Amino acid sequence: MSTIPSQPITQTRESTPGILDRAIAEWRTALGQDAVDTSEPALTRAGTCTFAIRRTVPVILRPSTRAQVQHLMRIASHYGVPVYPIGGGKNWGYGSGVPSASGCALIDLSRMNQIVEFDEELAYVTVEPGVTQRQLMDFLAARQSNLWMDSTGASPECSLIGNTLERGFGHTPYSDHFGHCANLEVVLPSGECLQTGFGRIPGASTAPVYKYGVGPYIDGLFTQSNLGIVTRMTIWLMPAPEYMQAFFFRCDEEDGLSYLVDALRPLRLDGTLKSAVHIGNGYKVLSGLRQYPWELTGGKTPLMPEQLQQLSKSMNFGYWNGSGALYGTRAQVAEARRLLKKALKGNVTRVQFLDDRLLRIASRFAKPLGWLTGWDLSKTLELVKPLYGLLKGEPTAEPIKSAFWRMRTPGKADADPDTEGCGLLWCSHTAPIRGEDARIMMEITERVTLAHGFEPIVSITLLTERTLCSVVSISYDRSIEGEDKRALDCYRQLMDTLLAAGYPPYRLGTQAGFRVPGEEGFRNLLQTIKDRIDPKNVLAPGHYLR
Amino acid sequence: MSTIPSQPITQTRESTPGILDRAIAEWRTALGQDAVDTSEPALTRAGTCTFAIRRTVPVILRPSTRAQVQHLMRIASHYGVPVYPIGGGKNWGYGSGVPSASGCALIDLSRMNQIVEFDEELAYVTVEPGVTQRQLMDFLAARQSNLWMDSTGASPECSLIGNTLERGFGHTPYSDHFGHCANLEVVLPSGECLQTGFGRIPGASTAPVYKYGVGPYIDGLFTQSNLGIVTRMTIWLMPAPEYMQAFFFRCDEEDGLSYLVDALRPLRLDGTLKSAVHIGNGYKVLSGLRQYPWELTGGKTPLMPEQLQQLSKSMNFGYWNGSGALYGTRAQVAEARRLLKKALKGNVTRVQFLDDRLLRIASRFAKPLGWLTGWDLSKTLELVKPLYGLLKGEPTAEPIKSAFWRMRTPGKADADPDTEGCGLLWCSHTAPIRGEDARIMMEITERVTLAHGFEPIVSITLLTERTLCSVVSISYDRSIEGEDKRALDCYRQLMDTLLAAGYPPYRLGTQAGFRVPGEEGFRNLLQTIKDRIDPKNVLAPGHYLR
Repeated sequence: MSTIPSQPITQTRESTPGILDRAIAEWRTALGQDAVDTSEPALTRAGTCTFAIRRTVPVILRPSTRAQVQHLMRIASHYGVPVYPIGGGKNWGYGSGVPSASGCALIDLSRMNQIVEFDEELAYVTVEPGVTQRQLMDFLAARQSNLWMDSTGASPECSLIGNTLERGFGHTPYSDHFGHCANLEVVLPSGECLQTGFGRIPGASTAPVYKYGVGPYIDGLFTQSNLGIVTRMTIWLMPAPEYMQAFFFRCDEEDGLSYLVDALRPLRLDGTLKSAVHIGNGYKVLSGLRQYPWELTGGKTPLMPEQLQQLSKSMNFGYWNGSGALYGTRAQVAEARRLLKKALKGNVTRVQFLDDRLLRIASRFAKPLGWLTGWDLSKTLELVKPLYGLLKGEPTAEPIKSAFWRMRTPGKADADPDTEGCGLLWCSHTAPIRGEDARIMMEITERVTLAHGFEPIVSITLLTERTLCSVVSISYDRSIEGEDKRALDCYRQLMDTLLAAGYPPYRLGTQAGFRVPGEEGFRNLLQTIKDRIDPKNVLAPGHYLR
Repeated sequence: MSTIPSQPITQTRESTPGILDRAIAEWRTALGQDAVDTSEPALTRAGTCTFAIRRTVPVILRPSTRAQVQHLMRIASHYGVPVYPIGGGKNWGYGSGVPSASGCALIDLSRMNQIVEFDEELAYVTVEPGVTQRQLMDFLAARQSNLWMDSTGASPECSLIGNTLERGFGHTPYSDHFGHCANLEVVLPSGECLQTGFGRIPGASTAPVYKYGVGPYIDGLFTQSNLGIVTRMTIWLMPAPEYMQAFFFRCDEEDGLSYLVDALRPLRLDGTLKSAVHIGNGYKVLSGLRQYPWELTGGKTPLMPEQLQQLSKSMNFGYWNGSGALYGTRAQVAEARRLLKKALKGNVTRVQFLDDRLLRIASRFAKPLGWLTGWDLSKTLELVKPLYGLLKGEPTAEPIKSAFWRMRTPGKADADPDTEGCGLLWCSHTAPIRGEDARIMMEITERVTLAHGFEPIVSITLLTERTLCSVVSISYDRSIEGEDKRALDCYRQLMDTLLAAGYPPYRLGTQAGFRVPGEEGFRNLLQTIKDRIDPKNVLAPGHYLR
């Protein structure tokens, strides 16, 4: 069953020039000159991401207030000019900030970056879409808050609201971002504004703390969709636990994944493991440790499993490499650790624990680190520290270096993969937490990626109590002739094959086209709603819905 | 601010008789004679609940399959005859199974009672709307399953789907019923059927285990609403923990609530308390232990606080009486117990723990129970056992006996409060988990209920990590002249006063009228959706939406 179009949809919604000019003129009046950008370099940048979908962006709008967003949407709807909103534009691997259709005015919400409410006692923060992961981290640090945020590995400059609306995930017990938000303020395509949950009841003290409100619970309508622009959201924060202990394990057998997944399921299900556990294959670890080993392959790609094995031996990482953390009081962590060790026994080559104290020591004495992880000494700390931070919700720019895997220039944490020519596509599919399902997914992934000339760089996450997610990075050098096309072909075949095997994606990128796979009833209902509230289809046309 | 109509909406949607007769004739053909009931006693029963809202029900339909539900909805939509679906009709205190408008055909889904899927490993069950709490409990017991369900205290015959769609809650770590379901099958007013989440993707192995699917997450649209009939749902079950320990505490000071709530908040927030904690006031405990003390009050109502105090002393219960449970391995429970005791220290008169072993001993030797709870010996076990069972997800009929509080006939667990003339209204409002908010809510509740001649029978539940819910029972004898009206007046004033103070209801009963309180944007969007998918407004008119 293939439900994904065989070619990426190059949606085009070019407006007739006269109409667009009039809309732009009105936007200038409404937002001010400096909030309407038609400069060529900015427009080119706005249409560029880490793969071969390039969209013409006629204008960038930078509203500063919700009223301006309402105003600009009224203008867009009046003229029928399509628009595409972004928070930070850091949706890497899924299309970054590139609009879903050519001809869309880009609404860059980064100026709306106020943290409008903060409650230490009830542990939440209310933010605008321009608030980034780094900004919230700094905000909490400045207040010496005892609260942790949850962070994705994407980028410190990633928009909190943007990631939540794409239903992204992080690494702490609050990893389900959409599961830990409430109280949305939404501007509809008409420019009308609404509040969800109890936010719609003036003076309701439970607006920021209770998700569902009374009556239909509608927040989910605005996730992975194009039905409204979220201009404010409450995000719940996690009280820092008394103690956190990270764990790292490795397993050197290919069929170990299946045992590991089955062994960890009961702990994820019963809440002993409160947060997502990540299991990376050797390719994943290698791409975090270094760039492509051109010297070993004689300049050829892809890196074959036998070659990887050579490197894993010399660099001392496993076929499967797991990480996660335990949170609670010292006694709670000790008990969780006991249960984890019991579950892993016989299924892993080694398991190591790491806490703040040990990390401090390790940082001071890099050498003793060998006994800690068994990994390559010089690189381990570099890899472990950001990962350890993520387990406490601290954003990091480190992981994006792996986007430079196949590049001939060295990766930098502050580099912009969109403009550096890095090729990166993420393909994120779900399976039940069952060893056999994990095994089949991996088998498909390895077969399809290697056949297309790419490495199966895979991180398997025990995302929820019952569901795992396999994130596959298709990583390449865009400057090499034909690679862009091969990568998209690989993406599409991987998507189709995994779907046909019963493993649907939890998230789609711009490359997937506008079709949400599946039967018609669901699509009809959503399209009915979309048609009614956005009759001219001006808001993010093709983003999950037509 | 009063957003609730001052009079209950007596919605009437009588169809012209000819039209209704034609619809009924077609329903007979579609469903079979025995599935279309127009017998007078059944119709009268269907229009009766525990307060003074009586609705004319012209016909009861009892479909057995989803296809029949689709068929009957096509007929309803064609003729514009309104319908109202119920699972078990046990929505006690909120209108039981009485339709939202007079003239509605009642769709009784109790024949659709198949448990269609069960997975011990991934811990879920997929059910139809007629499946009751008791049925699932028996099903799990018969399979010697290691999984627990979560149960409300309402009735063993309560529909699992019905309660979940009203966003009801129970007593285990899976107490948020809507938070633990996925994969809905929904029949729309047009008769069209859709699947939500990954259920809409044929063959998706994650359909029963992942909530959000891909694209907009729409499940919430079908909760507390009238947009569709849910004919199938996956419900997640909890692996039985190695050990459970219930706890009971009491506090004898009126202002103790505020301290208790503040002391417990950090434990609820950090997950040490995985489930809802309930704090009942003295009235709540008394109404569970016995009927109204007519002898003490000389036949007068309400029971005043001084009189309650007398009884609480002689019967040995507190001003505030808390209960909850700790779940996990023995070590996890021991640590949670340490933290709980530390938090309660100085805030309670006593705290007692109870586990399976102690309960077995207590059951065998009723006498030693005195030292366990300090409560009235003869009644304690009777009150504690069902409550203890609820903490493990076992449904019980016991709590409904308290609906007989003001009745002159003794309450029975298997009695039907709807037809026995019991008066019962539940008023369920939310507040942040903050002592001061709990105090204000209680102050309002006591003042309003006593002024209307009713006791403030209150259970405060720490519902989520950040939100508490106060469930007030307005309990009376419907046969007493004027009480029906006084009770509804009391309900309305309590609702309005709590709303105005910033404490909105998490759920509404038929008595609240059709209006979801709050600002217009939200209502407009929902009404737009409703108008589009149900243009003749045939499905449950007035149930949360017009």
